[in-house]
Amino acid sequence: MAQTRTLDREEPNYFGAGPALLPTSVLQQAAYDLINYNDENLGIGEISHRSKPAIQVIDDTKANLKSLLNIPDTHEVFFMQGGGTTGFSSIVYNLFANYAKKTNGKKGKAAYAVTGSWSKKSAEEAQRLGFDVDIVVNTKDKKFAEIPPYSEWKPIDAESTAYLYVCDNETVHGNEYKDTPAPDYLPEGVELVADMSSNILSKKIDVSKYGLIMAGAQKNIGLAGLTIYIIKKSLLEQPSDEELNKYGIPLPPIAFHYPTVVSNNSAYNTIPIFTCHILKLVTQRLLDNGGLEKQEEINKKKAQVLYEALAKYPNFYRLPVTSESARSNMNVVFTLPSDELEAKFIKEASENKLTGLKGHRSVGGMRASIYNAVTLNSVELLVDFVKEFADKNA
Amino acid sequence: MAQTRTLDREEPNYFGAGPALLPTSVLQQAAYDLINYNDENLGIGEISHRSKPAIQVIDDTKANLKSLLNIPDTHEVFFMQGGGTTGFSSIVYNLFANYAKKTNGKKGKAAYAVTGSWSKKSAEEAQRLGFDVDIVVNTKDKKFAEIPPYSEWKPIDAESTAYLYVCDNETVHGNEYKDTPAPDYLPEGVELVADMSSNILSKKIDVSKYGLIMAGAQKNIGLAGLTIYIIKKSLLEQPSDEELNKYGIPLPPIAFHYPTVVSNNSAYNTIPIFTCHILKLVTQRLLDNGGLEKQEEINKKKAQVLYEALAKYPNFYRLPVTSESARSNMNVVFTLPSDELEAKFIKEASENKLTGLKGHRSVGGMRASIYNAVTLNSVELLVDFVKEFADKNA
Repeated sequence: MAQTRTLDREEPNYFGAGPALLPTSVLQQAAYDLINYNDENLGIGEISHRSKPAIQVIDDTKANLKSLLNIPDTHEVFFMQGGGTTGFSSIVYNLFANYAKKTNGKKGKAAYAVTGSWSKKSAEEAQRLGFDVDIVVNTKDKKFAEIPPYSEWKPIDAESTAYLYVCDNETVHGNEYKDTPAPDYLPEGVELVADMSSNILSKKIDVSKYGLIMAGAQKNIGLAGLTIYIIKKSLLEQPSDEELNKYGIPLPPIAFHYPTVVSNNSAYNTIPIFTCHILKLVTQRLLDNGGLEKQEEINKKKAQVLYEALAKYPNFYRLPVTSESARSNMNVVFTLPSDELEAKFIKEASENKLTGLKGHRSVGGMRASIYNAVTLNSVELLVDFVKEFADKNA
Repeated sequence: MAQTRTLDREEPNYFGAGPALLPTSVLQQAAYDLINYNDENLGIGEISHRSKPAIQVIDDTKANLKSLLNIPDTHEVFFMQGGGTTGFSSIVYNLFANYAKKTNGKKGKAAYAVTGSWSKKSAEEAQRLGFDVDIVVNTKDKKFAEIPPYSEWKPIDAESTAYLYVCDNETVHGNEYKDTPAPDYLPEGVELVADMSSNILSKKIDVSKYGLIMAGAQKNIGLAGLTIYIIKKSLLEQPSDEELNKYGIPLPPIAFHYPTVVSNNSAYNTIPIFTCHILKLVTQRLLDNGGLEKQEEINKKKAQVLYEALAKYPNFYRLPVTSESARSNMNVVFTLPSDELEAKFIKEASENKLTGLKGHRSVGGMRASIYNAVTLNSVELLVDFVKEFADKNA
């Protein structure tokens, strides 16, 4: 079956929201390494997660992330199996445990900024697990069309609040915080926690401002199955199990217990090492290509040309994110005047080899996800099509 | 870098315990599919987990498992991210929730048979999460050298016990239940729960006898990152979150909630579809090669020739599992008279391209893991070496 096949492919113009496109050169390298890694005559996925080559992959990936994101020594990087959903759950257990440690047993509460379906699900999970949640902003009634100014957010009670949770880029609804969220709004002592699943490594960030950054790898930088955590080291301090029971804080499943994961170099629960290897290759490629400064420049350009093209036809293409400053540089969401036109758009785009453009089932319309692996060339082809389609059908 | 490489490799004689060897032909197919799946010019890891091709992979894998294991309609198959560790945690939450449903709110207890390090960790996790655990058998003091006859197990209180948990094959210590565990011992109404992470699909089993089978894929059948669950459908019934709170049963993180996973066709938490695809290819290959009847025959033969060779030198090779009937057909653990001889064995075996033989760090000695993907030919080469080494050094 495989004999006549090759590892080549035409460069895809694929705008799927996740799992998403990866650089072809990374996949080719990974394909070889799946069968014979480092000339060991054994694949990278077949070796023990505690073997030297596996530990090297984990350590290299961590080092690449530290270098790309300029992660200070105050912060630790680790990996867990899972995606955004296991991520937002694990945060609840661990950050409330740390808060209890800091306050000698207070249960506390958390502030959640609900700006799309992912932050909404995250807030619901914290409540479901038995914690008090303050929804400090909620744009659901506005269909998540904006991120309101911080002056309109409900003030945070610094005395009783463990952390503020934001979703830095809402994949489904296409809005994004362009700078560090909540700079002057956040009281000292309350930790900033951000889900960056769909925009991690797309831009420079100031890690020192965050208590915790969590990112599922599958959207911007890797395969499904691995989640990156960047945590302020002081947040790893937790009470004992007995103390947690006394305080009425639920224990996480042991694989979710950050101190255990960190003290086992991310391999307590067997790390999917092939998936981590892909992350290593992706981060290495970013470093080789000029780091996040360069990648951010390309990503801004991509978003700019696409939003500009859409904005030229304001009566034809509608942008549900009405606040321009909140429009995501990763997920460009837009709609057309009718279902028929949307179906026609998808069909004709596909005939032009522009694929993955259908919007999320909960929102409809179109969504062009233009993650790191999507080239400026792909976006320019989409821009051409956007213009042609409007000229013909508007 | 990649241009001169091929997807070929010499057949490895690799006996690592996990992540472990996979069939070369499966990895080759997967390597192509990583880049271009079904001639879509897109890799299997880059498509949405809710797309038709991804759903097809999930459904095909389930169908293959149903066919191979002859799974009755009374049982459901589903997948979760994770490995054995997330597996044994998730079982605690879900089975106690189901028990509360059946008993109108009783918390109940669970029986654990501790016959190695994995069942030991599983029992500790159930206790850690706040449940009463009856250790009905514990062979730790005997260094897990046997599985005692059921007449010696502590009787189970059927009135208050939700389930009996066994680890069907203890990877670290090399013991295995050869038939369905606890046949006459288990009272009616108490569910049999088995961790089969390291021997699933190695032999025929009677699924109807089990309440739940859990198996991390990474040892016998796939890459790390995916766990198979086969559950009696009636065990999916659970109280509401409010009721669980009232009963004092902790809620699992939402990604661990079996009813949610099942109702979302294993894709609530994004399924690592590349890993699932490998599982599909592995199960398809098993079906094509004659199913589990044929594979079991080969596995028994492999274990038989290896144990026989070791037994020929009883003063040289020691088998820590003293009870012959409990010796694992998957993980053959043995030791030599001195650390020096063990180091020499590992070194010379490696020079003969027989690798992955070092025992688990907690046990020492040697371990030959002879999972499905390890061929009879590899085992025969190891047998030759075992004999030669003894003849020279005994």
